[in-house]
Amino acid sequence: MSEPRLVEVRRSVLKQPRYRVAALVGDLATENDAVRLARSKAPVKQITTGTLCHLEAAMVQNALQEWDLHELDFLFIENVGNLVCPSSYDLGENLRLVLMSVTEGEDKPLKYPTIFNSADVAVVTKNELSDAVEFDWNAARTSIESVRPGMQIFRLSAKTGDGMDAYLNFLSQQLAEQRALVRV
Amino acid sequence: MSEPRLVEVRRSVLKQPRYRVAALVGDLATENDAVRLARSKAPVKQITTGTLCHLEAAMVQNALQEWDLHELDFLFIENVGNLVCPSSYDLGENLRLVLMSVTEGEDKPLKYPTIFNSADVAVVTKNELSDAVEFDWNAARTSIESVRPGMQIFRLSAKTGDGMDAYLNFLSQQLAEQRALVRV
Repeated sequence: MSEPRLVEVRRSVLKQPRYRVAALVGDLATENDAVRLARSKAPVKQITTGTLCHLEAAMVQNALQEWDLHELDFLFIENVGNLVCPSSYDLGENLRLVLMSVTEGEDKPLKYPTIFNSADVAVVTKNELSDAVEFDWNAARTSIESVRPGMQIFRLSAKTGDGMDAYLNFLSQQLAEQRALVRV
Repeated sequence: MSEPRLVEVRRSVLKQPRYRVAALVGDLATENDAVRLARSKAPVKQITTGTLCHLEAAMVQNALQEWDLHELDFLFIENVGNLVCPSSYDLGENLRLVLMSVTEGEDKPLKYPTIFNSADVAVVTKNELSDAVEFDWNAARTSIESVRPGMQIFRLSAKTGDGMDAYLNFLSQQLAEQRALVRV
């Protein structure tokens, strides 16, 4: 199971518990991801879509009814995990991240350009497996660059924590910028 | 890139070149997979779907127009790679395989039950990465069993060839059974 990875994320976040974080996770079935994430003590809700391949804004709105968003700094929404359908739906997010793992192949951005074009930032995950899968970082970066020139890319391992600081700092900075915009 | 894996598949098949094999591969964009598979000298065509998350029977029919199916023993159709949309479309196949890799998490069948319920056989791939990802085979098998009791499961590595003989023997047997049905 992928539990060890998530436990590591939790530890990393707990080192600096500066933010109030919550998460919505989307899958066709099961509450597995919500159960795992809830161990962090953050509020988590699972949206199950049945046979639908993506989340829609109304599902997010419905899931958020019991939460006071003013009490949160970050709300993470995980869309149903595929690289096609989620690209077509606006969930009202401030920032859209596309995650690709090193196990998926360096040319995934070329095969699925829409999700990379509709996202703001790319995150290359499971970096601890790079050697095992002979991951070619330059090829992956070139793929992303050719679909979306200048796209900001983070490369990290939630399991080892490698690259996580840069990513969390980026999120902190994004929050500061969003709040500055709201104040203006 | 995943090229080494595909080269190994070719060698494994070439050991026993008893069958005439062709392939259709589906992605949103690029001919990358077709180019890789074509190195095997088998006829290969790429179907690119643009933004569509699945293949449909008409696309397959269209792609096959120039091929004489009577000259083939096996036609492999790779549907667009996600675990949701392809489950809903009948492409006229005799046998539907669902592939999950060891890197995806043992509870994938629970999260995406429809594709496991609509497939005939499950294939657990990238087995050479099992140790690196701490893959729990019993948990994966239990997940598949709970969604689809009695489902036949193959576990293999295209890179090392591990498990490939059992899988290829199964396909040979399926072909014999299909032909026996046609003769009746």
